Amino acid sequence: MPEFRQNMVSKEWVIIATERAKRPDQFLQKKEEKKSIPLHREDCPFCPGNESKTPPSLFSIEKNGAWSLRVVPNKFAALQSHLTTERKHEGRFLKADGFGIAEVVIETPFHNRTMATMDLEEVRNTVMAYKERYLALSKTGRIDLITIFRNYGERAGTSLEHPHSQIIATPIVPPHVRNPLYQSQLACDTFGDCIYCGMMEEERRQQARVVVETQQFLVLCPFASRSPFETRIYPKTHRSSFISISDEELVDFASVLQDTLKRISIGLNDPDYNYIIRSAPVEDCEVKYHHWYAVIVPKLTTPAGFEIGTGIYINTTLPEQCAEFLRGVAIQ
Amino acid sequence: MPEFRQNMVSKEWVIIATERAKRPDQFLQKKEEKKSIPLHREDCPFCPGNESKTPPSLFSIEKNGAWSLRVVPNKFAALQSHLTTERKHEGRFLKADGFGIAEVVIETPFHNRTMATMDLEEVRNTVMAYKERYLALSKTGRIDLITIFRNYGERAGTSLEHPHSQIIATPIVPPHVRNPLYQSQLACDTFGDCIYCGMMEEERRQQARVVVETQQFLVLCPFASRSPFETRIYPKTHRSSFISISDEELVDFASVLQDTLKRISIGLNDPDYNYIIRSAPVEDCEVKYHHWYAVIVPKLTTPAGFEIGTGIYINTTLPEQCAEFLRGVAIQ
Repeated sequence: MPEFRQNMVSKEWVIIATERAKRPDQFLQKKEEKKSIPLHREDCPFCPGNESKTPPSLFSIEKNGAWSLRVVPNKFAALQSHLTTERKHEGRFLKADGFGIAEVVIETPFHNRTMATMDLEEVRNTVMAYKERYLALSKTGRIDLITIFRNYGERAGTSLEHPHSQIIATPIVPPHVRNPLYQSQLACDTFGDCIYCGMMEEERRQQARVVVETQQFLVLCPFASRSPFETRIYPKTHRSSFISISDEELVDFASVLQDTLKRISIGLNDPDYNYIIRSAPVEDCEVKYHHWYAVIVPKLTTPAGFEIGTGIYINTTLPEQCAEFLRGVAIQ
Repeated sequence: MPEFRQNMVSKEWVIIATERAKRPDQFLQKKEEKKSIPLHREDCPFCPGNESKTPPSLFSIEKNGAWSLRVVPNKFAALQSHLTTERKHEGRFLKADGFGIAEVVIETPFHNRTMATMDLEEVRNTVMAYKERYLALSKTGRIDLITIFRNYGERAGTSLEHPHSQIIATPIVPPHVRNPLYQSQLACDTFGDCIYCGMMEEERRQQARVVVETQQFLVLCPFASRSPFETRIYPKTHRSSFISISDEELVDFASVLQDTLKRISIGLNDPDYNYIIRSAPVEDCEVKYHHWYAVIVPKLTTPAGFEIGTGIYINTTLPEQCAEFLRGVAIQ
C-alpha cells in the first residue's frame, strides 16, 4: 500500500510508492567500465602546477612543502563580492545586485580521487577547510547564509572531475530555507525543545532507518526521504550552526562522512550525488530551534512534472530498506 | 553584473548569472539524428489495438468509429483510489494512506507525434480532456488538489514515448503549493487585487519578456525564471481555477500551448520538457487571490547542490533574451 509521509520539520509530504517499489539493489549504477582517470591532468586548473589558473589561495594546508588542500575564489562565480546588497525596483518587480562570495575547496592534489577513495586525512582537511571558511565568511558582515555543498558527477551538475566542494555565501535567506526554520521555531515554541533532537530520539528508538551511529553523529535515511538513498548526518549534540562544530566532532564528522559515502559508492557502484550542509543563517548561529546537518542526495531518479508542480516527491523505495542495505555494505 | 531577482508571489529568489551567461542559441539540443519513431508500435500499451493493456477508458473522444483520445486510470499509479485519507502516527512521525487518483491522457492514436507536431484538433482534444477530468475529479469529495502535467522525454522523467499527459489528484495541499497561495492572499489583503493580474499588467507595459499575446492569453518568460526558457501561459481574464476556463478560452489555450511548444521545439531542437497546470486547490476554486497558469520547463540544465540547499536557482540566461529568441522562431 502506498503512503504519504510528512517531513516533520518542513511539513512537505512525500509518497512512498510501494506498488512500484524497487529493491535497493535495483539502483546499482550500470556505469561503463570507469574510464581510467589519470592521477594528474595537464589541462586541469585544480591540478598541481596549474595554480596560476586559479586566483590565489584564501586558505591552504601544506604537507612536505606542497599543498594538500587549497581554497580559492570561484573564478566562474555566479555572485560577485564587490557589489551592494541594496534592493531595487524594476516596475513592480524586486531585484538586487548579485552580491555574494563563492569559493572552491580543492580537496586534494590527486585528480582521480573521490571522497570515497581519499585518505581519511584528506577528508579531515576538507571539513576543516569548511569550518575555517565558514568562520571567515560569517565575519564579513554582509552575509546571511553560508551554503557548503559538493556536486559529484554530471548528473549532479558538475563537469569538473578534480575533487572539489563549493561554498556560496549570500546576503539573502530565501523562503526555501526560512520556511522550515519558521516551522522548527513554531515547534520549539510549542514543545519547548529542538524538533530535530526529538526526531533523533525517535529514530534511535525505532532503529529502522539508522545507518550508523558514532559517538558524535547519527546517520539515517529520513522517514520522509524524497528520493532513494537520501541520507542525513546529524550531530547528536544540539548545535544550530556548523560554525559551532567542536574539534572532536570535526574529526568524527570526517570519518562518518567518508564512511557514508563509501557505503553509497561501494553499494551502488559509484553513483553521482550532491551533498549539502544545512546550517542556521549567520545571525541565528546559536538558537534552540535549528540543528545543522548534512544531507546526501544520490542522483538515481529524475523529478518530473508532479514533483515540480506540487513539491510532493514520489519515492519508489522504502527508506527502511535503503538504511538496511547501507548498513550491510562491507566498506573495508 | 549578476543579479538576484525575486519571484513576486513565492518570494523565492533566483540568480541571473550574467557573467557565465549563455546566448539562447547555445541551448540548442545536439540530439542525434532522431531515431525514426514508428507511427504505431505493437508493444506500446497506448497504441490502438492494445486497449486491453490499459484499464477501460474514463473518457474518450471518437472520430470515424475509432478513438482519437482516451483517458485511462494509471495502471502504475503511485496513489490508489480505494484507500482512506486518515492521518496516522508512527511514533512522532505523521503519515497517511496513499489515497489519490492518477490518470493518463492518451492524446492521440499516433505513436510518433509530439505536442508540437500534432494536429491542432488533437491538442484541443487534450485540453478538453483536462477540463472534463478536472471537473469529474473535483466532484469526488475527497480531493483537495488536482495537478495536470506532461513529462516529455527521458530528462523530463518519462520513458513512455507515446504522447500522453498525466493527472494526479491528491487529498493534500502541500506547503510547496500552500506557501505561495498564502503569499498571494496576503498581497490581495494588502493591495486589494490579484497579484498575478498586476504582474501581467507590468509585463504588458515592459513587453521585454512577452513571447506572444493572444485575445485570451499572455505567454511570457518570467522575470525570475529559474531556468533557461521557463515559459508561462496566463489567462488574461482573472480565474483562480482551471475548472473555470471558458469554452472560448479552451480553444485559444490549445492554440497558444501548441504555438509555445512549437517555438521551443523548433527553436531549441526538440528539448525534453515538463509542463504543469497550476490551479487553485479544489476548495478555493473561485478566489480573488490566485490565478491559474501553465508553466513549461525545458530540461536544459541540471540543478545542483546550491539549488537543492537554498531553493535559489542559478540561471545563466536572461529571460528577456529567451523571450526575444522565442518571439523570433518561425513556426509555420
